[in-house]
Amino acid sequence: MKGSGALLDIAVIGAGRIGRIHARNVALHPRARLVGVTDPDARAAAGVAQALGSEVISLDDAFGAKAVLICSPTPTHAGYIERAATAGQAVFCEKPVDLDATRVRDCLEVVRRAGVPLMVGFNRRFDPSFASLRRRLEQGEIGTLEMLTITSRDPSPPPATYAAQSGGIFRDMAIHDLDMARFLLREEPTKVYAVGSSLVDPEIGRAGDYDTAAITLKTASGAICQIGNSRRATYGYDQRIELHGSVGLLRAGNATATTVEAAGSGGFRTDTALPFFLERYAAAYQAELDAFIAAVLDGTPAAPTGEDGLRALLLADAATESARTGLPVRV
Amino acid sequence: MKGSGALLDIAVIGAGRIGRIHARNVALHPRARLVGVTDPDARAAAGVAQALGSEVISLDDAFGAKAVLICSPTPTHAGYIERAATAGQAVFCEKPVDLDATRVRDCLEVVRRAGVPLMVGFNRRFDPSFASLRRRLEQGEIGTLEMLTITSRDPSPPPATYAAQSGGIFRDMAIHDLDMARFLLREEPTKVYAVGSSLVDPEIGRAGDYDTAAITLKTASGAICQIGNSRRATYGYDQRIELHGSVGLLRAGNATATTVEAAGSGGFRTDTALPFFLERYAAAYQAELDAFIAAVLDGTPAAPTGEDGLRALLLADAATESARTGLPVRV
Amino acid sequence: MKGSGALLDIAVIGAGRIGRIHARNVALHPRARLVGVTDPDARAAAGVAQALGSEVISLDDAFGAKAVLICSPTPTHAGYIERAATAGQAVFCEKPVDLDATRVRDCLEVVRRAGVPLMVGFNRRFDPSFASLRRRLEQGEIGTLEMLTITSRDPSPPPATYAAQSGGIFRDMAIHDLDMARFLLREEPTKVYAVGSSLVDPEIGRAGDYDTAAITLKTASGAICQIGNSRRATYGYDQRIELHGSVGLLRAGNATATTVEAAGSGGFRTDTALPFFLERYAAAYQAELDAFIAAVLDGTPAAPTGEDGLRALLLADAATESARTGLPVRV
Amino acid sequence: MKGSGALLDIAVIGAGRIGRIHARNVALHPRARLVGVTDPDARAAAGVAQALGSEVISLDDAFGAKAVLICSPTPTHAGYIERAATAGQAVFCEKPVDLDATRVRDCLEVVRRAGVPLMVGFNRRFDPSFASLRRRLEQGEIGTLEMLTITSRDPSPPPATYAAQSGGIFRDMAIHDLDMARFLLREEPTKVYAVGSSLVDPEIGRAGDYDTAAITLKTASGAICQIGNSRRATYGYDQRIELHGSVGLLRAGNATATTVEAAGSGGFRTDTALPFFLERYAAAYQAELDAFIAAVLDGTPAAPTGEDGLRALLLADAATESARTGLPVRV
Repeated sequence: MKGSGALLDIAVIGAGRIGRIHARNVALHPRARLVGVTDPDARAAAGVAQALGSEVISLDDAFGAKAVLICSPTPTHAGYIERAATAGQAVFCEKPVDLDATRVRDCLEVVRRAGVPLMVGFNRRFDPSFASLRRRLEQGEIGTLEMLTITSRDPSPPPATYAAQSGGIFRDMAIHDLDMARFLLREEPTKVYAVGSSLVDPEIGRAGDYDTAAITLKTASGAICQIGNSRRATYGYDQRIELHGSVGLLRAGNATATTVEAAGSGGFRTDTALPFFLERYAAAYQAELDAFIAAVLDGTPAAPTGEDGLRALLLADAATESARTGLPVRV
Repeated sequence: MKGSGALLDIAVIGAGRIGRIHARNVALHPRARLVGVTDPDARAAAGVAQALGSEVISLDDAFGAKAVLICSPTPTHAGYIERAATAGQAVFCEKPVDLDATRVRDCLEVVRRAGVPLMVGFNRRFDPSFASLRRRLEQGEIGTLEMLTITSRDPSPPPATYAAQSGGIFRDMAIHDLDMARFLLREEPTKVYAVGSSLVDPEIGRAGDYDTAAITLKTASGAICQIGNSRRATYGYDQRIELHGSVGLLRAGNATATTVEAAGSGGFRTDTALPFFLERYAAAYQAELDAFIAAVLDGTPAAPTGEDGLRALLLADAATESARTGLPVRV
Repeated sequence: MKGSGALLDIAVIGAGRIGRIHARNVALHPRARLVGVTDPDARAAAGVAQALGSEVISLDDAFGAKAVLICSPTPTHAGYIERAATAGQAVFCEKPVDLDATRVRDCLEVVRRAGVPLMVGFNRRFDPSFASLRRRLEQGEIGTLEMLTITSRDPSPPPATYAAQSGGIFRDMAIHDLDMARFLLREEPTKVYAVGSSLVDPEIGRAGDYDTAAITLKTASGAICQIGNSRRATYGYDQRIELHGSVGLLRAGNATATTVEAAGSGGFRTDTALPFFLERYAAAYQAELDAFIAAVLDGTPAAPTGEDGLRALLLADAATESARTGLPVRV
Repeated sequence: MKGSGALLDIAVIGAGRIGRIHARNVALHPRARLVGVTDPDARAAAGVAQALGSEVISLDDAFGAKAVLICSPTPTHAGYIERAATAGQAVFCEKPVDLDATRVRDCLEVVRRAGVPLMVGFNRRFDPSFASLRRRLEQGEIGTLEMLTITSRDPSPPPATYAAQSGGIFRDMAIHDLDMARFLLREEPTKVYAVGSSLVDPEIGRAGDYDTAAITLKTASGAICQIGNSRRATYGYDQRIELHGSVGLLRAGNATATTVEAAGSGGFRTDTALPFFLERYAAAYQAELDAFIAAVLDGTPAAPTGEDGLRALLLADAATESARTGLPVRV
């Protein structure tokens, strides 16, 4: 169902959970063509390619396409970005660019020199409800933003082994919320305070990480942001944002599969929140791809940028340090 | 983005508003192939075909495909169904089969003899929330259904000229609600009472039709259904259903574009309902097509059936008569 | 906690469920004095009087007070009203004045001649939410009222013996909704259609009454009202009203004991509706008494009037006849 | 409307906004008698007394009653408590006992020696919704409490002159939230971090106070509490609490004057939150008085206690210090 205009040839690197989403969205996109999928796990790549009527390609081939979506494991990101940039490709990379800020800076410098568009996968910016918050805030609907509250809870914890290698809850999970904070505050936080606990899975605690955490950000203008994270939520993937401004409030809540409400002697009951990011952010992933394709084909700005990725990482680093030392950190 | 299994070749007749939706869904469907689009308006057909990377075909070609989706104007439906059935095609037809019950019966007889699957486009049965109501009702969640309330309001009235040719509000608009009533009551209404008024557009009244109406149905077991219709709703397309059973209540409300809520001195405000059927029933149209394709490829039952189409029409006829005579009608 | 202005001396006749509410509200009212409570059941009267620091009085004494609240059984209402009116008392009487319209007319004539204020206990008009609907409708917020939907379900059926003597569901229960319809339509219904079923308690059916019913009203201007009644609601006392107007919608929902919401794997759950009229209409009973006292002390109009009581009864009679004959009734 | 049992004689000290509420509730209470109201402002005292059919009394007389409600300005609290305790009176005192923790400790010691009941006016514990949160938490409905989120925003800022003398936003406003945190955490916070900004009224900032603030608490078990405060909320008095536990979530939202919802082209709109504490906590003030009277007449525990008042103050002191120094404070 490709349209009649120019199509962007896109290769997808990585056939895991997130690679599958992006590959499917490319295959369905009226302005793109999925040139193929590559993954060291040949079976995974074949599974994705076959389901989409596409092909398995080599990594080299992937770097030969006009654009590339990098959905491979985190440690490969920076290298792949550099290789793609050097090859002159437009690059979309899942977050994070790298867990090490210095490595990120070096990578972004390569991109800068190559002059190619780079977009980082902070998908939540494209959620219709969250995007609407930003738009309405910019339109002045609630005046000046004074307090921002972000609630972000995963339905269940990852394996403790994953937690250990993920860079910790702040770099792995809260980084999304820190990016949303920047996106909505439209100003850089200057002070970060974080606390963490291990309440959900003791193994996560033994691995040196937290599964329950709170972050407080403050900006130069005095706006305050509170983020609450948990690695569990029995009622679905809990993703809410509230903005308190000088003349009003804006908030976006959870999405549900249906609008059905049931009533009985136990009260009135609605659906749980959608189970996890694949469902909750389905529309966001599509809009994110729209933006990437438009950036390449139409020359619109590619955002969130690599710089956005770096800033969010620096905040996550600060939160990690704050939770460890027990002291606020200036950034 | 076609899968690797067998694909169903589908032709679409009609390139109007509803034809475009179906054509697009076919083009995107992993189990189907859009063989082409036909329409007396060549430009309309070309527009749809081009946008989807498909072709304009002749009406004859359309009747040569394995399956056909009939999205042309109502007066053509019965003839096209018969022609498709005679050609051995699987048939999906937008409601209604015809505005004349005798003509519908004749047509269904042709289909019966041909032995082909026929599915009628009562799309609302496939709305995720309404489908959930039925499923949960069948699972016994609210015991025996005692009262059913259907609210169905269009955002704005059609042109009075359309109203005049449409068969009237009961056959054109309420027929969907009457089908939902049958779908949820799971029992035939035996008595129909309807009242109508012309409050929205005097032209509609002058054309002999209503724009505001209420229907009461009663079944043999004593279940009561109340339907409320209006040709206007300033707050979006208003589509709600409530089931009152012996041990509880189930209801499904309107869908919104976002979950955003804004608060200020005027109170707390959420989005309007989605504007009209294209948005509200987007998922329903997809699920409807899934069901049609599964009926053809997998041999699952094709439903709603032609008989469902006939029954809803007979109820709409009864409502029309009731509103005209001022007396309830037995069916 | 009586204020310093003039106090209205009020006697309460009837120490049953509704008498207790009114007596308590009088005792607490800053502009009234409870002169005493009378009831043929001396123990009941004593119980109420004692709890309120008031006295048991004789029926004769009750008719000697400045004002009287008649909360005794229905068959006594008309006679007591006449006696009170003749004695020059201001009269508040629980609905209905009588189950027989002719008797009501005669009674109202006595009141008219006596020139005393008479107020009939259609408490729902004073519910803060329903009163707000009327006020906002009058202020033009939704333009012209086109459709009115009233949902009114008791938590559980009365004993079948009560149902038999109550005049039937339309005169006993729906009469409140019929009064609300008049209150909000601000125009007299000219046509009544009703259906009823016995689904909740077969005994009620055997007693010749219904426990599940639907009424359709139409006015001269074409406004349509749909009322749905049931003698059961597992989720509390279900009292909702929705107004659909030419430029918008207004609705009022159920009240709950708390705003608490609980979430878990079963979804998000809020309280049941308040259990029954004592809780749901607690504020309405107080506001109703305010209005009665103001009518007497300040000369504001006493409403709802005896005429309102008669009109609602005539609609209930029409609904009863319609359900029996199966035909709509002109009023 | 006094009952037949023993009545508790209660004097009210202070005829300001909060004194009027308490005096009225005493006057209406079936188990209490309002012996009189005292205030240095004779006119204020007379106004309250007259409206309630009670008397103006001297301060000495107030200390002669069986029980006393202290609703005078904060600086008088500790002294009055001591005088009442020494006189053997049961004491209810509005928060805080004093703004100086040492002074509070001394005062509580006097009370302890006197052996009289002392209850501190943390009214929110008695709000039906918040009380329900605690009860349901204790019943294990959400397992172990892991995160607590308290949103507490006043509709508008106090005069900057008041802010200056109030002890600051943490001692004046957040102290209620800190008490709720203790009430719901059921464990003492061990670490307090607070940030504040002056965004609402620059005068408040110049007076050395904040009008926008956030507090993070952590307990020994690892539970985390986030409090958000603002001195403005254009949509009413914003009072919400959310508990996130190991097996579910509980939350209580704002209360509204009606359940009315209006819809139009701007979406669906509900009421603002109730304007301020008088309306929002009307039921809480009554339940608080019930508890005080029961403590005196029935010997049930008087809670919240003076110790609760002290603990909340120490947390407010810690928050104040944290905001000033920029560092978390251990308590």
